[in-house]
Amino acid sequence: MTPPADAESATDTGLLSPGWAGSPAASATSDTAYLRALLDAEAALTRAQAGLGLAPEAAARAVGSAVDGAAAFDVRSIALRARAGGNPVIPLVADLTAAVGAEYGPYVHRGATSQDILDTATMLVAARTLDLILADLDRTARTLARTAADHRDTAMPGRTLTQHAVPTTFGLKAAGWRSLILDARDRLTTVRHSLPAQLGGAAGTLAAFTVFGTTGGTVDTRALVAAYARELGLAAPVLPWHTLRTPVADLAGALAFTAGALGKIAADVLTLARTEISEVSEGSGGGSSAMPHKANPVRSTLIAAAARRAPQLAATLYGALVAEDERPAGAWHAEWEPLRELLRVTGGSARDAAELTEGLRVHADTMRQHLGLTHGLIVSERLAAELAPVLGRARAKALLTEMAARTYTEGRPLAELLAEEPELKDLPVDDLTDPARYTGSAGALTDRALERP
Amino acid sequence: MTPPADAESATDTGLLSPGWAGSPAASATSDTAYLRALLDAEAALTRAQAGLGLAPEAAARAVGSAVDGAAAFDVRSIALRARAGGNPVIPLVADLTAAVGAEYGPYVHRGATSQDILDTATMLVAARTLDLILADLDRTARTLARTAADHRDTAMPGRTLTQHAVPTTFGLKAAGWRSLILDARDRLTTVRHSLPAQLGGAAGTLAAFTVFGTTGGTVDTRALVAAYARELGLAAPVLPWHTLRTPVADLAGALAFTAGALGKIAADVLTLARTEISEVSEGSGGGSSAMPHKANPVRSTLIAAAARRAPQLAATLYGALVAEDERPAGAWHAEWEPLRELLRVTGGSARDAAELTEGLRVHADTMRQHLGLTHGLIVSERLAAELAPVLGRARAKALLTEMAARTYTEGRPLAELLAEEPELKDLPVDDLTDPARYTGSAGALTDRALERP
Amino acid sequence: MTPPADAESATDTGLLSPGWAGSPAASATSDTAYLRALLDAEAALTRAQAGLGLAPEAAARAVGSAVDGAAAFDVRSIALRARAGGNPVIPLVADLTAAVGAEYGPYVHRGATSQDILDTATMLVAARTLDLILADLDRTARTLARTAADHRDTAMPGRTLTQHAVPTTFGLKAAGWRSLILDARDRLTTVRHSLPAQLGGAAGTLAAFTVFGTTGGTVDTRALVAAYARELGLAAPVLPWHTLRTPVADLAGALAFTAGALGKIAADVLTLARTEISEVSEGSGGGSSAMPHKANPVRSTLIAAAARRAPQLAATLYGALVAEDERPAGAWHAEWEPLRELLRVTGGSARDAAELTEGLRVHADTMRQHLGLTHGLIVSERLAAELAPVLGRARAKALLTEMAARTYTEGRPLAELLAEEPELKDLPVDDLTDPARYTGSAGALTDRALERP
Amino acid sequence: MTPPADAESATDTGLLSPGWAGSPAASATSDTAYLRALLDAEAALTRAQAGLGLAPEAAARAVGSAVDGAAAFDVRSIALRARAGGNPVIPLVADLTAAVGAEYGPYVHRGATSQDILDTATMLVAARTLDLILADLDRTARTLARTAADHRDTAMPGRTLTQHAVPTTFGLKAAGWRSLILDARDRLTTVRHSLPAQLGGAAGTLAAFTVFGTTGGTVDTRALVAAYARELGLAAPVLPWHTLRTPVADLAGALAFTAGALGKIAADVLTLARTEISEVSEGSGGGSSAMPHKANPVRSTLIAAAARRAPQLAATLYGALVAEDERPAGAWHAEWEPLRELLRVTGGSARDAAELTEGLRVHADTMRQHLGLTHGLIVSERLAAELAPVLGRARAKALLTEMAARTYTEGRPLAELLAEEPELKDLPVDDLTDPARYTGSAGALTDRALERP
Repeated sequence: MTPPADAESATDTGLLSPGWAGSPAASATSDTAYLRALLDAEAALTRAQAGLGLAPEAAARAVGSAVDGAAAFDVRSIALRARAGGNPVIPLVADLTAAVGAEYGPYVHRGATSQDILDTATMLVAARTLDLILADLDRTARTLARTAADHRDTAMPGRTLTQHAVPTTFGLKAAGWRSLILDARDRLTTVRHSLPAQLGGAAGTLAAFTVFGTTGGTVDTRALVAAYARELGLAAPVLPWHTLRTPVADLAGALAFTAGALGKIAADVLTLARTEISEVSEGSGGGSSAMPHKANPVRSTLIAAAARRAPQLAATLYGALVAEDERPAGAWHAEWEPLRELLRVTGGSARDAAELTEGLRVHADTMRQHLGLTHGLIVSERLAAELAPVLGRARAKALLTEMAARTYTEGRPLAELLAEEPELKDLPVDDLTDPARYTGSAGALTDRALERP
Repeated sequence: MTPPADAESATDTGLLSPGWAGSPAASATSDTAYLRALLDAEAALTRAQAGLGLAPEAAARAVGSAVDGAAAFDVRSIALRARAGGNPVIPLVADLTAAVGAEYGPYVHRGATSQDILDTATMLVAARTLDLILADLDRTARTLARTAADHRDTAMPGRTLTQHAVPTTFGLKAAGWRSLILDARDRLTTVRHSLPAQLGGAAGTLAAFTVFGTTGGTVDTRALVAAYARELGLAAPVLPWHTLRTPVADLAGALAFTAGALGKIAADVLTLARTEISEVSEGSGGGSSAMPHKANPVRSTLIAAAARRAPQLAATLYGALVAEDERPAGAWHAEWEPLRELLRVTGGSARDAAELTEGLRVHADTMRQHLGLTHGLIVSERLAAELAPVLGRARAKALLTEMAARTYTEGRPLAELLAEEPELKDLPVDDLTDPARYTGSAGALTDRALERP
Repeated sequence: MTPPADAESATDTGLLSPGWAGSPAASATSDTAYLRALLDAEAALTRAQAGLGLAPEAAARAVGSAVDGAAAFDVRSIALRARAGGNPVIPLVADLTAAVGAEYGPYVHRGATSQDILDTATMLVAARTLDLILADLDRTARTLARTAADHRDTAMPGRTLTQHAVPTTFGLKAAGWRSLILDARDRLTTVRHSLPAQLGGAAGTLAAFTVFGTTGGTVDTRALVAAYARELGLAAPVLPWHTLRTPVADLAGALAFTAGALGKIAADVLTLARTEISEVSEGSGGGSSAMPHKANPVRSTLIAAAARRAPQLAATLYGALVAEDERPAGAWHAEWEPLRELLRVTGGSARDAAELTEGLRVHADTMRQHLGLTHGLIVSERLAAELAPVLGRARAKALLTEMAARTYTEGRPLAELLAEEPELKDLPVDDLTDPARYTGSAGALTDRALERP
Repeated sequence: MTPPADAESATDTGLLSPGWAGSPAASATSDTAYLRALLDAEAALTRAQAGLGLAPEAAARAVGSAVDGAAAFDVRSIALRARAGGNPVIPLVADLTAAVGAEYGPYVHRGATSQDILDTATMLVAARTLDLILADLDRTARTLARTAADHRDTAMPGRTLTQHAVPTTFGLKAAGWRSLILDARDRLTTVRHSLPAQLGGAAGTLAAFTVFGTTGGTVDTRALVAAYARELGLAAPVLPWHTLRTPVADLAGALAFTAGALGKIAADVLTLARTEISEVSEGSGGGSSAMPHKANPVRSTLIAAAARRAPQLAATLYGALVAEDERPAGAWHAEWEPLRELLRVTGGSARDAAELTEGLRVHADTMRQHLGLTHGLIVSERLAAELAPVLGRARAKALLTEMAARTYTEGRPLAELLAEEPELKDLPVDDLTDPARYTGSAGALTDRALERP
C-alpha cells in the first residue's frame, strides 16, 4: 500500500478550479470524502447484518474500528488498483478485509456488490454536499430579501434585448433573483430527502443475503435494506436501483437548475457592473496590479463559468439513464466524475453567490440617472396610452414619433418638448414623463414575492 | 398574406422523424398547434381584461371570433415576417389586429409584450402534450404491471457488465421498468400542474396594464394575471418569469428523465432481442425485403434514438436559465425549438414504448435455457456460501475454482461434478445448482414494486 | 399516397425559427430537399450500375425519369410510412419502384441498403448547404476586411471581465472577427471536399452487388462505388462507413465551430449596442410599436441563440460515433434531425451575420468618448511603465494609486492631476495619457491579419 | 506558503477515475504538470525578452533558476489564493516574483496578462498529452493491422439493428476500427502542430510590450511573439486569441472524435463479448471474487464510459467560443476543467484501447458457428438474387418465404430444404448457402483499408 513515486505529480488540489477550490463543497466531495463514505457504507452493512442477527456483533465492531481508521487507507493505491476491475470498491474491500483481520474479515462486504457500496457512498456524499449548498442558498435568499426590501422603490431602466424598454425597480430584480434561489432550494430539498441507499447484491435480487442463514429460516431482505438505510440516514428504496437511475437523474436536474439560477444572477451583475453601466459593483472586486482602476466582478465571473458547465454535466447524467441489463458496462462508470463535478461546481457557485449578494453594492443614483439616457423615451409606452384619449390614437402616435426623433436631434428631453404642445397643456407632463412613476406593479410584485417563505 | 413560392419546398412533415411523425404529440406541437395556442393566449388576454371591465365585452367577442378562424392565418407568412423583429408574435398581432378590425383592433395584445404571448402559448402546448405523454405512460405502466405479474417467477440470467452474473427474473426486470415509468409519470405530473401563464408587459412590471384605467382608479394587475391564467387553465405566477425560467427548466428535466427512462427499457429489449439471445422480441418487428428472416426491433431502436438526443436538448434549456436583464437577447430565442423538439421526441418515444410493451413477446423457455449456458456457474455465488460451512471457506473456494475450470474443459455441468465429490454427498446438489432456485428476493421485490399505484 | 387529414396540422414552416426560416439553408435542408437528394442517390445508383454494364441503360433512364418527377412523391405519406421500418427509404423505394414500373422496377435500389441511400442523401444535402454557408461567410469576411481597414485606427476601450482595461481599436476587433470567419471557412471547406457517398449493402460488404453478374465474372465493387460517387459529385470512400461515422462527426465539429465563431461576433455586438454603450448599432434594428425608441439588435440576438444550441447538437452527433455492429439500433437514427438542425441553425446564422456585418453602424465618436470614462485610468498601465524610470518604481506606484483615487473623488482627469506634479513637468503628459496613443500593436496586428486571404 | 490543514482532505488522486488514473495522460495533466507549464511559459517570456534585448540576460537566468525549482511552489496554496482574482496566475506570479528576488523580480511576467500565461500553459499541456495519445493510437493501429490481416477471411455474422443480416468478416471489422483510429490520429496530428502560444497583454494589443523601450525605438512585438513561441515549441499566432478560441475548439473536436472512435470499438467488443455471443473476449477480464466464471470486459467498459462523457465536455468548449469583449467574464474560465478532463478521459481511453486490442482474443470458431444460427437464412439475400434467374422473381421470393418459415418450424437448415426442390437440382446449393462464401468484397475492402499508412 505504499504510494507510488508519481503520487505527488498525479495529485490535484484545485489549481484550475478557483470556482470551488477550498469550498466546503470541495471538501465534501474530495477523494478522502468519498473514501470515508465508502467505508461508512461498508460499516453500515455489517452493522445492519449484526442488528438482524446475521453477523456477530463483534464483526460489526471490528469493521467499525477498521473504518474509523480511515486515514490508514491509501487512496492513491486504491485508485490505481481500481483499474483492474474498473471500480475502487474491489481494492477497498481487499484492504478493509485485511485491516479487519482473519476472524471477521469474511463479514466485510458480505453479500454486496461493488455498486451497492459505491452508489450508497455517492448518495452520502451528495447528501452532505446538498446540505452545504442549501445552507448557502438560505444565506443568499435572506440577503436578497433584505436587498429587495431596501430597493423596493429604487427605479432603474428595464432592459430587453439589451435596450432600455420601460422602467423597473432594483427591488423587483432582487426579488426575482430570490425567487429563483427559493425554486432551487425547493428542488434540492426534495431530492435531498429522497436520496436512497443502494443494496441489491450481484444482480439486484439480494440473493446472496438470502443464503446467509442456511442454519435456518429465511432472511428478511426488506428489513435488511431498511436497517442499512437507517444506519446511513438515507431512504430505503423499494427496488435496487443499479439500472433504475432516478436518484442520479434527480440530482442532475436539481443541481443544473441551481447552477443556472445562480448564473442568471451573475449575468445580471456582470451586465450592471460594466464600466459604462456601473449600477452595481461587487463588494471586493478582483484587482489588477497593472491597472489600479480595475475591479473585476470575479464572483460573478466564476458563477457564470459554472453555469456554462452544469448543463452538459447534467446531460451526461441524464444520458446514463440508458443503462442496459442488471448492471451496465459503461453507463454507470460514466456517472461518477460528472456527478462529483456537478456537486462541486454548484457548491462553489452557491458559496460565491452568497458572498456576491452579501457584498453587492447598489448604486441607486446611477440607476436613476440612466433612466434619463433615452431623453424620456423610456416612458413612451405610457405616453402612447395617456395621450390617445386626449389626441386620438393616430395623432398621439404621430406626435410621439416626431418627438422621439427630436429628442435625439435637438438633445432635449421629451418632457420639455411635450410641455411646448398647446394641446397638452392640461396634462401633468412632468408626472407622466417621470420614469420613477412608471414602474407599474413592481412594488406590489416585490412585496408579494417576499411573502414566500 | 399570400404564401411565397417556396412555401412547399420549405415545409417539413416529418420525413426524418419516424420517431414522432404522425404521433399525437406531433400534432400537439406542430406550427399549427402553436399558432392555435398563440391565438388562444391573445383571446384570453382580451377576455380577462373584459372580465375586469378594462375592455368592452364586444372587444373580447371580436377577438374571440377572429381567433376562431385560426385557419385564416397564414403560418408561413408569419414565420417569414417573424425574422424582422425576431419573434412570430409581432406579425401575428398585426394580422390579428387587422382581422379584428378598426374598432376593436386596439384591444388586441393590449399591454402585453411578445414574450407574454409566446411563453403562454408554449405552456399551453406543453400542457396539451404532457397530457398525451401521460396517457401513454399510464398505458405502458398498466401493461408492464401485467407483464411483471405474469413473469414473476420466470427465471433468466442476470447480466452485469455484459456477462451472466446470477439469476434474476423477468418479472423483476419488468417491475423495474414500470418503476421508472411511474417515476417519469410523477415528475411530469408535478410539472404539468405547475405550468404558468406569462404576463408581465414590456419589462415585467405590468406597467402598461396600470394605465388602462386613467379614467379612474388603479388596475388590479394581480387579478388580471389570475383571470388570464384561469381563462387558459394554467397556473397564475407570482412574478412574471421572462427571465426566471423555472417552468422551462422543469419541463427540460422531467422530459429528459422520461426519454431516458424509456431508453432504459429500449436498451434492455435491444439486448434481449439480439439474434443470439432472443429472450424477447418485438410484436411487429420491422422487416427487410431482401432478408426475410430479419425482424428488426424498430420500436426500441426509435426509443433508443430519442434517448440519445433528449439530454442535450435539455442541456440547451438548462443553459437558457442564464438570461440577462428583463428580457434576454438570445437565451429566450434558444429555447423555442429545443423545447418543442424535446416534447416531440419524448412524446414519440412514449407512443413507441406503449406499443413496444404491449406487443412484447417474452420467450421464457429461452431464458430458462440460457441459465445453463455457464454450465451452472451462474450459481457459483450461492455455492461459495453454501459449501463454506461444510468444507471450510478456503477449501470451498479452491474446489469451486477447480470445478469452474473443469466445466469448460470437460463440458460437463457443475452439478454433475459436484455430485461426484464424496464430501458433498449429503448436500442437495440439484437444488443448490438450480438457477431457478437462486433468484433471491426477486419475487418479493416484484410484488412490492407492483403495490405502487 | 393520399395525404392524411392531419397533413396540414402536422406541417412545420418555421414558425419558431426566425433564425433560419426563409433562408437558403432552410430550403436546402427541407423535407423536399431531402426527398430530392434521396431520389438523386437512387438515380445515381442505377446509373452507376448501367455504366458498368450491370443494369440496362433503359433502366437507368426509367429511374431517372421517375426521379425527375420528384413532385409526384408524397413526402408526408412517406414520412408516416417510415415508422414501420424506422426509416424513410423503405417507403420511398416502394413508391419509386411503382413509379418506374414493372420492367425496370427491379433495378431500383438494387443491392443497396436503406442506409446507403439516406447517408448519401444526407451528404448531398450537407454539401449543398455548406456551399451556401461558405458563400455567406465569404461575404461576411469581405465586409469585415473593409470594416477593419476603415477602423484601423479607431480607438476604443478594451474591455476585460466587463471592465475597461487598456485601449484597443475597433479595427483590431473586426480583424479578429474576420479571422474567426476565415477559420470557419477553412474548416468547412475541408469537410465539404471530403463528404463521401455511402455504399455498402446490407452489412457493409457490398455482397449483393457481387451476385448481380452470376452469368459471368466478378463485379468490381470498387469501380461501382467510384462511379456512384462520381455521379453525385461526392468523394468515394475506402470503406463503407455505416458505423464509421467520421463524415458526420467532421460536419458536427466544423458547424459547431462556425456557429460559435459567429456567436462571438454577436456577443460583441450585443454588448457594444447596449443603450449605455451604443458604440455600434445594427443597421436595421427590430422595432417595437409601443416603444418607438427601441431598436433591438435582432440579427445578433438570433445569431446568439444559434450559438447556444449548436454545441449540444454537435454533442449528440459526436455521441453517435458509438455505433455498434454493422449498422446500429439507434445511434444512426439519432443523427438525422440534429444534423439537419445544425445545418439550419448554422446556415441561418451565417445569413444573419452577413446582414449584420454589412449593416453595422460604428460610432467612432462614442468609442473615443468612452476612453475618457475612467478619467484617464485606462492608460494607467502605461503610466506605471513610463513613470518608473523617472520616479522609481515604488514612488511611481504610490503616486498613481493616490491619483487614481483623486480622479474619482475630485472628478478630474488624470492628465490634469499629473500636470500639477512638479517632478513630471518634463514629461509629455498629454501624450502619455492620450488613450488613442496607447493602442500598442493594434494597427500592425490588424494589417497582418488582413493579409490572410 | 504553508499548506492549510485541509490540504490532504481536498486532494484528488483518481479514486473515481479508473479510466485514466495512473495513465501517462493523467501525469501530463495533473496540477503539477500545469504548474510546470505555467512556469515554463513565464520563463520563456523572460527569455524571449532577453533575446531581443528587452530584458537583461541575468533576469532570464534568474527566472529560469526559480522556475527550475518548481517543486518549491505550493500548488495548493496557489489554488486557494486563485480565488481572489479568479485565476491561478496571479498568485503564481507573486510567488515567482518573490522567488526571483528584488533585482530581477520586475522582469517576471512583464507586459503579460494572466491569460497569456494560462493559455500558453494549457497549450503546452495539450501538446504533451496529445503526443502520448498519438503514441497509443499508433500502437493500437499497428495491432489492428495485424488483427485485420490475420482475420481477413474469418467469416462472422454481420449484424444490423441487433439482428443477423448477412455475413461479414472479422478482418473487415478490425480494418474499420483501424480506419477510425487513423482518422483520429490525423485529426489530432493536425491540431497538435497548430497549437499556438498566447501573448497579447492586457487587452490583446501587446501595448505594454511597446513601452519597455522608452529609451529608444519601437519594440518589434511580432518578433517577440515569435521568439516566445519558439522557446516553447508552439506555433506563433497571427493575432492574440484571448477571445478567438479556435485552438480550444479544435482540441475539443479532435478529442471528442477520438473518444468516440474508441467508443465504437468498445461498443463492438462489449457486444461480441456477451456471454451468449462470446465471439471475442478481453485478454484479462476483470474478475469477481464471488463469481469465478465472470470475466468482465473492463477495458471496453471504461472506454465506453469515456465515450459517453467526451461529447458533452466538447460541447462546453464549443460553447466557450462565445466570449465577449477582449477577455471574457466566464467563457474562458469555463474552459479550464473541461479541457483538462477531455484530455484525460481521451488519454485514458487511448491507453485502454491499446491494451484492449493487444489482448483481444478472437474466437473464430464461435463466429463460424453463429453463422448457422438462422438456419441458413443469413444468406437469403444471396438466394433471392440467385434463384430469380432460375425460378422467376416472384416464384423465387415465394419459395424463400415459405422455406424461411419451415426452417424455424422444422428446425432444419435452409440448404437441406432447398436440396429437396427438384427445380433447383442443378444449382450448387451447398455453395450458395455457405455463409463463408457470401462475404462479398470484405476481403478486398480489408486489403485496401490496410494500405492506408
